Amino acid sequence: MDEEKYTVQGFNASAAVAGLKKNGTLDLALIVSDREAAVAGVFTTNKVKAAPVILSERHVENGKARAIIANAGNANACTGDPGLNNARRTTELVGRGLGINSEDVLVASTGVIGQELDMHMIAGAIPGLIKALTPDAVPLAAQAIMTTDSFPKISSFTGRAGEHTYRIVGIAKGAGMIMPDMATMLCFILSDININSDDLKSALLSSVETTFNRISVDGDTSTNDTVLAMANGLAGNKDLSGEDHDIFAEGLRNVMWDLARMIVRDGEGATKLVSVEVKNSFSPSDALRAVRTVANSSLVKTALYGQDPNWGRIMAALGRADIEMREDGMDIWIDDVQIVAGGLGMGAEAERLAAEIMTRNEFSLTVDLHQGGYHDRMLTCDLTHEYVTINADYRT
Amino acid sequence: MDEEKYTVQGFNASAAVAGLKKNGTLDLALIVSDREAAVAGVFTTNKVKAAPVILSERHVENGKARAIIANAGNANACTGDPGLNNARRTTELVGRGLGINSEDVLVASTGVIGQELDMHMIAGAIPGLIKALTPDAVPLAAQAIMTTDSFPKISSFTGRAGEHTYRIVGIAKGAGMIMPDMATMLCFILSDININSDDLKSALLSSVETTFNRISVDGDTSTNDTVLAMANGLAGNKDLSGEDHDIFAEGLRNVMWDLARMIVRDGEGATKLVSVEVKNSFSPSDALRAVRTVANSSLVKTALYGQDPNWGRIMAALGRADIEMREDGMDIWIDDVQIVAGGLGMGAEAERLAAEIMTRNEFSLTVDLHQGGYHDRMLTCDLTHEYVTINADYRT
Repeated sequence: MDEEKYTVQGFNASAAVAGLKKNGTLDLALIVSDREAAVAGVFTTNKVKAAPVILSERHVENGKARAIIANAGNANACTGDPGLNNARRTTELVGRGLGINSEDVLVASTGVIGQELDMHMIAGAIPGLIKALTPDAVPLAAQAIMTTDSFPKISSFTGRAGEHTYRIVGIAKGAGMIMPDMATMLCFILSDININSDDLKSALLSSVETTFNRISVDGDTSTNDTVLAMANGLAGNKDLSGEDHDIFAEGLRNVMWDLARMIVRDGEGATKLVSVEVKNSFSPSDALRAVRTVANSSLVKTALYGQDPNWGRIMAALGRADIEMREDGMDIWIDDVQIVAGGLGMGAEAERLAAEIMTRNEFSLTVDLHQGGYHDRMLTCDLTHEYVTINADYRT
Repeated sequence: MDEEKYTVQGFNASAAVAGLKKNGTLDLALIVSDREAAVAGVFTTNKVKAAPVILSERHVENGKARAIIANAGNANACTGDPGLNNARRTTELVGRGLGINSEDVLVASTGVIGQELDMHMIAGAIPGLIKALTPDAVPLAAQAIMTTDSFPKISSFTGRAGEHTYRIVGIAKGAGMIMPDMATMLCFILSDININSDDLKSALLSSVETTFNRISVDGDTSTNDTVLAMANGLAGNKDLSGEDHDIFAEGLRNVMWDLARMIVRDGEGATKLVSVEVKNSFSPSDALRAVRTVANSSLVKTALYGQDPNWGRIMAALGRADIEMREDGMDIWIDDVQIVAGGLGMGAEAERLAAEIMTRNEFSLTVDLHQGGYHDRMLTCDLTHEYVTINADYRT
């Protein structure tokens, strides 16, 4: 790993083993900006919101922040008032240790729902975390927020605004419970770009829509989803506008798309990364419903696992997607191999070629509805034995 | 099996090995009423409709029928005009063999999508089927419509209308692709009651709503769902009305509920039959959305498999169900063991007791939302390794 690529001027990070994960690995991360940073956040749409989500939503409201403290192993969700107090206490401990206002500390948690956070573990680890802060430890923070993830997720982009070079570094964790809109997903974006919090928020929202809201692992959504972006302005650029703004927005989107792909690739038990694409739908909402229904179908996902170009299941999924469609107007491809034309199968040779492509760990599944001019796409993965093993055994 | 219980006066049935199933078991069934019967049908809501669905929808329109021919092994779906011709040709062959109008023959298919039906096999088997017709063979017909089902599904009810005794016998097949509204599900109801086709249809529709539309195996729906009811009037009762009508409707519902339970119990790879119940929701539609979301959640279903009272996943599912709810107003039970009160876990001892109940192969999961006075329930099953095995390997 090219460590230098994952530093951002003015940001320090650290990670510790607080004891919240049973397996004794890193489970607590701290990220701090040397100076006040513009901040923006996007949070779960689930009506059951974890305590750290409720608190961080409040703390980003003024558009400014200094630090993020995040733990894995315990979601601090469905924990009532004690949970909210524990989240608040965590930000106070970090604030006091750093000598900053606790309202400038954001907090995120992921892990098991419904268990009280062990505040002795958190409180015990915070002094060490603060002492260990270093510019090089963002990759360690990415490790510390993993739950059932099998690898840490980090991505970087370097851009220029006028004379000024800036960087965007993002870390994320995903695995199960991933589906629009977001899921047990944490993502933290750090940048030294100079941008106001309103512009940062609108760039973040539009990037979330085309990246994290276009991935699916199992159709469940979580109580803890949090995407936070901090920008501390140390790059020194002025007034991000016009082309410079567009380059930043595209850079942000690239980092988040990269992380989104890693999340699906690391979907619980997943062995395939599949881009589901729908072309020429009647409306944008039809396109979205179509890709979602196919990308979330258990029967399609088990067929992906079985490397079986079982296009009947794809057609059946589209048939219940509540979209404008004609059975005899549908074409389907696996990568560039067409397996359905006008609603009918292309025969054994096409299926043999498609099955060959499906042995790869990454390919696309494209449907042309011939109903209009809209398209959409979503990343999904296969449904495997390992998914069942992971989720049947999670707490035991 | 008490064979006598499964006969209905004036109905004969037979089954044959036509060769459509690769494993060489029974795959073609014929059911014939001696005289014209009132008929009613409910069909898949999927926009991709199998050829036999399209044809049978037309054939039930006049409210009268004589026979049902059903095959397993090939769904005759996504087969275009040749598929529709094959379905029509099947009804013609049966009509000619029996000396009846082909429009009085209903046809149903289940199995692999997108492959042309082998009409040589069908045509070759029909004469033998007709010759073998007998009152005792309804259970054989139940065997012949099985696909990945592990046992045949049959249920019987005997009632009285005034002085007259009548019987309702139902057979069904299910397994995967089961979710409201219906799924790869075939169900044929035979009765000797005297009822007009309008009354039969309304009784059938209301029974489907509370039985087959309240079960879920994997959230997918199929192109082939068909529920057909035939009543030939040989019981001799007059004008089914008042209490007699209610008893018949309840008997029909009992037979269909019985079959629906068998379908979920035999869900692909399922080891648990779980009744998901929601009480005191704000509206009837909230109650339905709530039970559907919990009953279809992959994370809840894997937790059922893991015998883990992971109530956080149940709360997270409800939180994304788009219903009126308050996190701190939710109670959850496994059978009679309360595991959540006011949105908070009841602790380790309650979870231990709940986990003990979850080792059984049948139990209930009840949520009290405390938002209003409506309730609903749905039968679901667990998501297991075997489900993945069955569906990854289905065609190969």
